[in-house]
Amino acid sequence: MQKLVDGVHRFQNDVFSTHERFFKRLVEGQKPLALFITCSDSRIDPNMITQTEPGELFILRNAGNIVPTYSNTSSGEAATIEYAVAVLGVQDVIVCGHSHCGAMGALLDPSQVTNLPSVRGWLGHAEATARIIRENYGHITDPQAKLTATVEENVLVQLENLRTHPSVLAAMGRNELRLHGWVYKFETGQVFAFNPQDGQFESVGDQGFEPRPIMPHLRAI
Amino acid sequence: MQKLVDGVHRFQNDVFSTHERFFKRLVEGQKPLALFITCSDSRIDPNMITQTEPGELFILRNAGNIVPTYSNTSSGEAATIEYAVAVLGVQDVIVCGHSHCGAMGALLDPSQVTNLPSVRGWLGHAEATARIIRENYGHITDPQAKLTATVEENVLVQLENLRTHPSVLAAMGRNELRLHGWVYKFETGQVFAFNPQDGQFESVGDQGFEPRPIMPHLRAI
Amino acid sequence: MQKLVDGVHRFQNDVFSTHERFFKRLVEGQKPLALFITCSDSRIDPNMITQTEPGELFILRNAGNIVPTYSNTSSGEAATIEYAVAVLGVQDVIVCGHSHCGAMGALLDPSQVTNLPSVRGWLGHAEATARIIRENYGHITDPQAKLTATVEENVLVQLENLRTHPSVLAAMGRNELRLHGWVYKFETGQVFAFNPQDGQFESVGDQGFEPRPIMPHLRAI
Amino acid sequence: MQKLVDGVHRFQNDVFSTHERFFKRLVEGQKPLALFITCSDSRIDPNMITQTEPGELFILRNAGNIVPTYSNTSSGEAATIEYAVAVLGVQDVIVCGHSHCGAMGALLDPSQVTNLPSVRGWLGHAEATARIIRENYGHITDPQAKLTATVEENVLVQLENLRTHPSVLAAMGRNELRLHGWVYKFETGQVFAFNPQDGQFESVGDQGFEPRPIMPHLRAI
Amino acid sequence: MQKLVDGVHRFQNDVFSTHERFFKRLVEGQKPLALFITCSDSRIDPNMITQTEPGELFILRNAGNIVPTYSNTSSGEAATIEYAVAVLGVQDVIVCGHSHCGAMGALLDPSQVTNLPSVRGWLGHAEATARIIRENYGHITDPQAKLTATVEENVLVQLENLRTHPSVLAAMGRNELRLHGWVYKFETGQVFAFNPQDGQFESVGDQGFEPRPIMPHLRAI
Amino acid sequence: MQKLVDGVHRFQNDVFSTHERFFKRLVEGQKPLALFITCSDSRIDPNMITQTEPGELFILRNAGNIVPTYSNTSSGEAATIEYAVAVLGVQDVIVCGHSHCGAMGALLDPSQVTNLPSVRGWLGHAEATARIIRENYGHITDPQAKLTATVEENVLVQLENLRTHPSVLAAMGRNELRLHGWVYKFETGQVFAFNPQDGQFESVGDQGFEPRPIMPHLRAI
Ligand SMILES: [Zn+2]
Ligand SMILES: [Zn+2]
Ligand SMILES: [Zn+2]
Ligand SMILES: [Zn+2]
Ligand SMILES: [Zn+2]
Ligand SMILES: [Zn+2]
Repeated sequence: MQKLVDGVHRFQNDVFSTHERFFKRLVEGQKPLALFITCSDSRIDPNMITQTEPGELFILRNAGNIVPTYSNTSSGEAATIEYAVAVLGVQDVIVCGHSHCGAMGALLDPSQVTNLPSVRGWLGHAEATARIIRENYGHITDPQAKLTATVEENVLVQLENLRTHPSVLAAMGRNELRLHGWVYKFETGQVFAFNPQDGQFESVGDQGFEPRPIMPHLRAI
Repeated sequence: MQKLVDGVHRFQNDVFSTHERFFKRLVEGQKPLALFITCSDSRIDPNMITQTEPGELFILRNAGNIVPTYSNTSSGEAATIEYAVAVLGVQDVIVCGHSHCGAMGALLDPSQVTNLPSVRGWLGHAEATARIIRENYGHITDPQAKLTATVEENVLVQLENLRTHPSVLAAMGRNELRLHGWVYKFETGQVFAFNPQDGQFESVGDQGFEPRPIMPHLRAI
Repeated sequence: MQKLVDGVHRFQNDVFSTHERFFKRLVEGQKPLALFITCSDSRIDPNMITQTEPGELFILRNAGNIVPTYSNTSSGEAATIEYAVAVLGVQDVIVCGHSHCGAMGALLDPSQVTNLPSVRGWLGHAEATARIIRENYGHITDPQAKLTATVEENVLVQLENLRTHPSVLAAMGRNELRLHGWVYKFETGQVFAFNPQDGQFESVGDQGFEPRPIMPHLRAI
Repeated sequence: MQKLVDGVHRFQNDVFSTHERFFKRLVEGQKPLALFITCSDSRIDPNMITQTEPGELFILRNAGNIVPTYSNTSSGEAATIEYAVAVLGVQDVIVCGHSHCGAMGALLDPSQVTNLPSVRGWLGHAEATARIIRENYGHITDPQAKLTATVEENVLVQLENLRTHPSVLAAMGRNELRLHGWVYKFETGQVFAFNPQDGQFESVGDQGFEPRPIMPHLRAI
Repeated sequence: MQKLVDGVHRFQNDVFSTHERFFKRLVEGQKPLALFITCSDSRIDPNMITQTEPGELFILRNAGNIVPTYSNTSSGEAATIEYAVAVLGVQDVIVCGHSHCGAMGALLDPSQVTNLPSVRGWLGHAEATARIIRENYGHITDPQAKLTATVEENVLVQLENLRTHPSVLAAMGRNELRLHGWVYKFETGQVFAFNPQDGQFESVGDQGFEPRPIMPHLRAI
Repeated sequence: MQKLVDGVHRFQNDVFSTHERFFKRLVEGQKPLALFITCSDSRIDPNMITQTEPGELFILRNAGNIVPTYSNTSSGEAATIEYAVAVLGVQDVIVCGHSHCGAMGALLDPSQVTNLPSVRGWLGHAEATARIIRENYGHITDPQAKLTATVEENVLVQLENLRTHPSVLAAMGRNELRLHGWVYKFETGQVFAFNPQDGQFESVGDQGFEPRPIMPHLRAI
């Protein structure tokens, strides 16, 4: 804990003091570029990966970057999405999974959650991911490859869940919101984005890459 | 969106390439110092405030830095807390509110959430905050002062909620976990920590500040 | 009630007795062509509209042909869909709305459900429909046209909800399941099917009509 | 799917065209005779069994003809019942089970639902049926006889559940609503109705049969 | 609080010391005569009213003597009933309302619960009572008479809810459990029991009174 | 049942008749000293233990004296607590466990609840108790000592849960409410109260005992 307190001192002396004007201006309100949904994993720093500054990313983080579907029972995820889309008017939402995700590992190996009732219940929102892997990926036996497939499919499943939120569907119907599926591989620094045209994740760093939002709303008005 | 893609390129070229060895070592697993719970507000960057690096903070973020109580219905918050405490063994949990919080503003002015059913339901987990302000803070009329009181009381309420999570209570009973209540005021760069000895928030930057965990478990074994 | 009892007698004497062999063969099990999801409205007879016989349509009916999203709380709809897709292996699912739908009328006029707490709660699963109409259809003022748009958009919203069910997503990933959006206009006998290529509903009876499933899974394996 | 599209054409050409006036009159609104609750099983056609026409039966169908009790969490069943009783004013409600019901079979053999979380959760609303069979029917060992008892007891259990819905209880208190328990045996064309006077199901086709509503409200005003 | 502490001393000195053998024998286990469900109102003492001793009444108390229906979401009431019936094997369950019940008063006047979200939600389990009074008792205008009718109807509604609990239905099917509806009028010392034969509550103290369980299970085996 | 009816007669003849004036005065309303939360166990009589009279204790009883946390889903416990604190203004709340508690025994031995789904679900609200015993009390092997520790820790856990209820937190913030943890050992007549100063339960009957409320609100205004 002392390390964090020391860090706060360092932040105040080294960072804030030299950017005071910038921080003061943030009082005027936030107008983030995007809603960034990712895992709580300590190895991910969304602002570092995207080289963004305070005020640019509205960030939702939980174990497994999971998005419960819209339902009559509210959730922190539903509220945060609704606030980002309907109040702040973000134009892009990124669901970003990552390599070596412990939550996805637990999804593949339920024995890990025997004494973790909250994690077990939470992974129920990734049940579609689990079923897809179980039913459609029987041909992959390498554990590492299976985990990678799980992380990728889970990003797609959570994007489906995201599409059930009223504010999201309504904004997509007006062509005012785009959804993106990313996977961050921290050990190589790579970021992969799902390309709906060929159904594959492709490296954001590659030559000629351009962001392609996935699945427009069924009916544009 | 293009700005974020450009940022990824910059991250890869400027940051990752010069710290490759550091990032590769993260594959061995994470052993974060603390669980940091804060708002999704884009103006907060937990790693910047605490000057921490990838691997050091397990981060849970949602609108209003709210922690639903433990219940039979799991939540992203419950799962993330359970994972941090029971699996990763973090020793400190920080609930960090912030100045100018839109969620707390909406708690004080329900008319803002008329068309936001998910936000409205979510703020139900801060109902204790709302009641405390309504019943106990009638003497404060200045809107800004009322919002500050709301942010502070909400941090304390969410700490109470946090204490109902089994993994938290059990670890506290072994004196292996400490809870902290913080408020970050981004426009001044200040961080305030709750001091249970005098019931006030005090500046982390002040001379002689030392972190005081709040409320040990009732009964240490 | 006497009319229904008389009907049973008539069924036994006029229908069953002349098709006894057919009915007996149904004991061997069911292998329905499709799952047909429609409203409870008495004016709809799915078997009549599609001219199908016992054993051909697995039928789910409720007020408003609503499909709650997949969530940790099960529902009759979730169970019925899972049974149809994962156990019976249906290859097509049709969500069929209809003209003059009372549930959709109530969605547009909440004053109708003041004393109907169950209906009010249920319409929460069509909140996306309500928001789409409110935010995106302000230009339509004619009540009849607005109701038609509501019925159509609701079919599309419920198809989004349908896509969150694990058995559905997994089967779509194998290209073994196709989803269809229909609207039945009983006063003209017309059936309209959504065509994802132009984003419009088109008459099933029209020359050259061919069924087009909507929205394949993001990633076909 | 093509078969269904062909059926729609046939319906339009053969059925609608010769009854156009009848269908057009349905626009005036529905005034169904009864609410008919039955299983989604494809082998059941409620309109055929009762020889009723469009406009005569309000129909609720799900796997197992299950009626969740009234609770603070709404359901499609609660909404449909409330709409039928409180808005449409139906005077009779029939809960109709059937022979060879797959849902009831799964209730007796939980191993069938291992990979069907939605079905498993849904059968929780038939837990009373399961307990009654387990505790009170130990003397029946023949699987077919046990399934028949399960189907029958389940109809009675769902009628108990039905009685907890406010609109149902209130209408029964005014003697304006009658409840009926039926079982349809499709392989023989028989329909059995529960007779509360002797506690047995008796054939609707039998000489001298007359419908007997079960269990009036406790207190007539 | 000091009064309660003094009372404990008095209990130990005056009551326990003279009945030590009786209390010690209770260690062998409990075999209560009945499950007694009543309101938390401080003016009710179930053991005093029935002149029973420790070990004779299993007691469930909450605001309004409300019994949520059986559902997939457990409750303290469901668990207590299940324990009493299935584990302890009680043979009688009494739901006992009372005069001047504050919870029933709030049910009639929702303005009282504006700032009481938990009470408001809880009264949802008495929604049938509210609807019955609203729809069927319009002819009663005297507030006191309306409250009495509400208390009585609520006892009957909660008995309906009680009947949905699996352990209750199963035991009733074996004729091993009887349900009773009582109302206690503390200001006159009267206890009224519902008589299903004439649909009225009659005084337990009256000449020739004998307990009549209400509503046997539909089907005796 | 006849025994209870005879008891009512005896109550009317022997108790009520000699205290008629006292009972009549209760019509004026209740102003209980405290909210007393205890188990449904038949061997506990709160009014006897505290030697209190009708009107003095507001009593909440369920299997295991469990208090679900405050959440968006209301419960009988939440409503009863809110009514006691916010409407009646009680100044003390006592959570009272007891020796030989069957619910706590079941918590230690889950095999007992295999066929008790409602009890199993309900014990989820004592999951923190179970985890504390499992993780922190491994050194206790004697079953009786383990049960005693479970009963004691559960009282503390439920006090934590109690603190999440808005009315409780708000009243504590005004220093108008005090919480107490008790354990009643019926076979010895002893009552133990938790002393937060040394973290032990001490006998209420001991020389010099004085009630010490536990855990004041974090911040008194
Ligand atoms: Zn992760
Ligand atoms: Zn905020
Ligand atoms: Zn309809
Ligand atoms: Zn069936
Ligand atoms: Zn009461
Ligand atoms: Zn107990």
